[in-house]
Amino acid sequence: MRLVVKKFGGTSVGTLDRIREVAKKVAAARDGGEGIVVVVSAMAGETDRLVQLGYQVSDNPNEREFDLLLSTGEMVSSALLAIALNAMGYAAESLTGRQVGILTDSVHTKARIRKINGERILQTLEQGKIAVVAGFQGIDEREDMTTLGRGGSDTTAVALAAALGADLCEIYTDVDGIYTADPNVVPEARRLRKISYDEMLEMASLGAKVLQTRSVEVAKIYNVSVLVKSTFQEGEGTLVTHEDAELEKVVVSGVTLDKNQARLTVAGVPDRPGVAAKIFGKVSDAHIIVDMIVQNVGEQELTDISFTVARSDAKKALTLVQEVLPEIGAHDVKLDAKIAKVSIIGAGMRSHSGIATTMFAALARENVNILMISTSEIKISCVIDEKYAELAVRTLHEAFDLGNRRDEEAAER
Amino acid sequence: MRLVVKKFGGTSVGTLDRIREVAKKVAAARDGGEGIVVVVSAMAGETDRLVQLGYQVSDNPNEREFDLLLSTGEMVSSALLAIALNAMGYAAESLTGRQVGILTDSVHTKARIRKINGERILQTLEQGKIAVVAGFQGIDEREDMTTLGRGGSDTTAVALAAALGADLCEIYTDVDGIYTADPNVVPEARRLRKISYDEMLEMASLGAKVLQTRSVEVAKIYNVSVLVKSTFQEGEGTLVTHEDAELEKVVVSGVTLDKNQARLTVAGVPDRPGVAAKIFGKVSDAHIIVDMIVQNVGEQELTDISFTVARSDAKKALTLVQEVLPEIGAHDVKLDAKIAKVSIIGAGMRSHSGIATTMFAALARENVNILMISTSEIKISCVIDEKYAELAVRTLHEAFDLGNRRDEEAAER
Repeated sequence: MRLVVKKFGGTSVGTLDRIREVAKKVAAARDGGEGIVVVVSAMAGETDRLVQLGYQVSDNPNEREFDLLLSTGEMVSSALLAIALNAMGYAAESLTGRQVGILTDSVHTKARIRKINGERILQTLEQGKIAVVAGFQGIDEREDMTTLGRGGSDTTAVALAAALGADLCEIYTDVDGIYTADPNVVPEARRLRKISYDEMLEMASLGAKVLQTRSVEVAKIYNVSVLVKSTFQEGEGTLVTHEDAELEKVVVSGVTLDKNQARLTVAGVPDRPGVAAKIFGKVSDAHIIVDMIVQNVGEQELTDISFTVARSDAKKALTLVQEVLPEIGAHDVKLDAKIAKVSIIGAGMRSHSGIATTMFAALARENVNILMISTSEIKISCVIDEKYAELAVRTLHEAFDLGNRRDEEAAER
Repeated sequence: MRLVVKKFGGTSVGTLDRIREVAKKVAAARDGGEGIVVVVSAMAGETDRLVQLGYQVSDNPNEREFDLLLSTGEMVSSALLAIALNAMGYAAESLTGRQVGILTDSVHTKARIRKINGERILQTLEQGKIAVVAGFQGIDEREDMTTLGRGGSDTTAVALAAALGADLCEIYTDVDGIYTADPNVVPEARRLRKISYDEMLEMASLGAKVLQTRSVEVAKIYNVSVLVKSTFQEGEGTLVTHEDAELEKVVVSGVTLDKNQARLTVAGVPDRPGVAAKIFGKVSDAHIIVDMIVQNVGEQELTDISFTVARSDAKKALTLVQEVLPEIGAHDVKLDAKIAKVSIIGAGMRSHSGIATTMFAALARENVNILMISTSEIKISCVIDEKYAELAVRTLHEAFDLGNRRDEEAAER
């Protein structure tokens, strides 16, 4: 029998009516003969409510206890969905992270799955029941509850699909797939039929927050096909899968935009070993994640170092660097919070030249000045002035003809 | 080290402020050198909220799923209390019913504890931590979550005290002890310093709803001393304990009132074997609990049978008996919902005569007609017209001088 893991996010189970709708969708798939594992998030808003309860009791809640607190949200939604399915005459059984045997490390609030002991869920499936799994949670060696971080239910679903050898992992969410760009910015944006794991990873980390990054990593390692679909409308969705000949033909798959960035520029840095280590050591000690780093080659012994951090960390980073200025003998540090990062992503870049040139030329035509550049095998990112952000995305979307790609359309017919 | 189990009910942890207050109370006891196991109920209103969610999804929610749903309420309050204690610098660890090893049968929504495997909680205590246990829940053989019925956290606390060999089980609630009568009815009602398990069982089943009946049964079997105290004010509370010489001296400990009763009278019943079985078989098949049964000895072959049921079941019971009337050849059945049951309870009745006479005479002096009488070793109950209920309670309280008992007062000094 075909086995499918279906994950429904918080919005999809956000009200009792929606839980009933999800139950109907699951029941229809069951009628179609599928073996089904459902993974649910907490009802929309519930996790936030629990987080607030915890923080009202303490500014710095004990993380072990916080995990137990948060994990109840998914238990509630899994029980409610199982109640709805049973009421419709479909045998269904909720299973907690512990019952499913999701064993994690002990890093509370952002645990990683180490192993899945799927014995109990296999029993449930063998009995012909629908398994309804509370997402986002696992247990550590001491059998204490752990949680997998925001979006962790995606990872629960993908990891379960891998452990059970499922044929497909469907992620039901409030968008109907992965787009070539944000449709709110680019009306011509088109849903992708397929995307590779690597492209999806770049998309996810660059701000297209459809899937938890970790879930895509797991999908890639275990070669799990992940289909992103809408809970609320019919459609083909987007298949996240391994790279194949078809995907390699696509040079640029999408354009992403990240406005949650700020740039710090340290000016007049003596060009000698150990200086960068001092700056970034200080910043990373404060658990601030540095994204892009660019060091300009200066004309003399002095150089400039620019780097970007999340906008919420910018002021803290500025203070930290100011403290270290005398020690490294740099002149000054400046903060620019009004920046944005636009990126083009495509597995085909590996084998195509001239992509960067096309990108820079397109931005130049619109007089968009590029402040920083960073590249990977399948991605080129440019930091620009925030006010040009949307213009840049539209320009790049058009420059790479993303709204009207004939090869993929032909394949879809 | 002295080990105390402290149970806090839903009102006691009903708000975040109250959870902080409970944390302070627990911390103070810890400072006093006690080893502490805390058992908590769900925050007041939370269980009702979860029940409603379940019933909004289905009129007849799957009981296994319903148990998982309800059990989350206690997990939330245990995590929040553990967060509060840790924030105050007191090492504390929440433990679910599963982690504590509370093994129950599989009768979901009203499971009974079979065994407690307290290994993990002993570890917690040995590490010098305060154990904060989610009450009301356990797991069955399949490791599915079960719940112990309304008030089940009392039973969790008492059973844990028994399993751990605790010195005392304190039940913190919104009243400051067990009274000789409801103070709302009898202003002179006095808090009892001590009460025996058997008396408490009669009290509990007769409507003084301070402790879950099952918890008193467990306390009696394992000889656990249970101290009922107020969360919100200082005081000695009432100790529920085994019968001793002191308690035997007390003839009547209290007067209780139950207005949730209705009486059915089947008239003109042929006095032959099997008739009562037919009537009560029909009623109990419908899961209606019959409390008192009185069969009047008739002058001829015909007799009357009266019995009482919970008022909410009365109409259903009436219909059932009407159906069976032709079969048994009885004349008629009448329903009287406007009745009340007043009872006097006292371990000393075993060795004292004349108590019943005093009771009946006191009621007669006030012209209160007795409709039904039922007795046990330590209790006499009279069914009377509802309109005399409060008068009867006050009369009996005075007749047995419960507001002013010198022997116990002397002992308290």
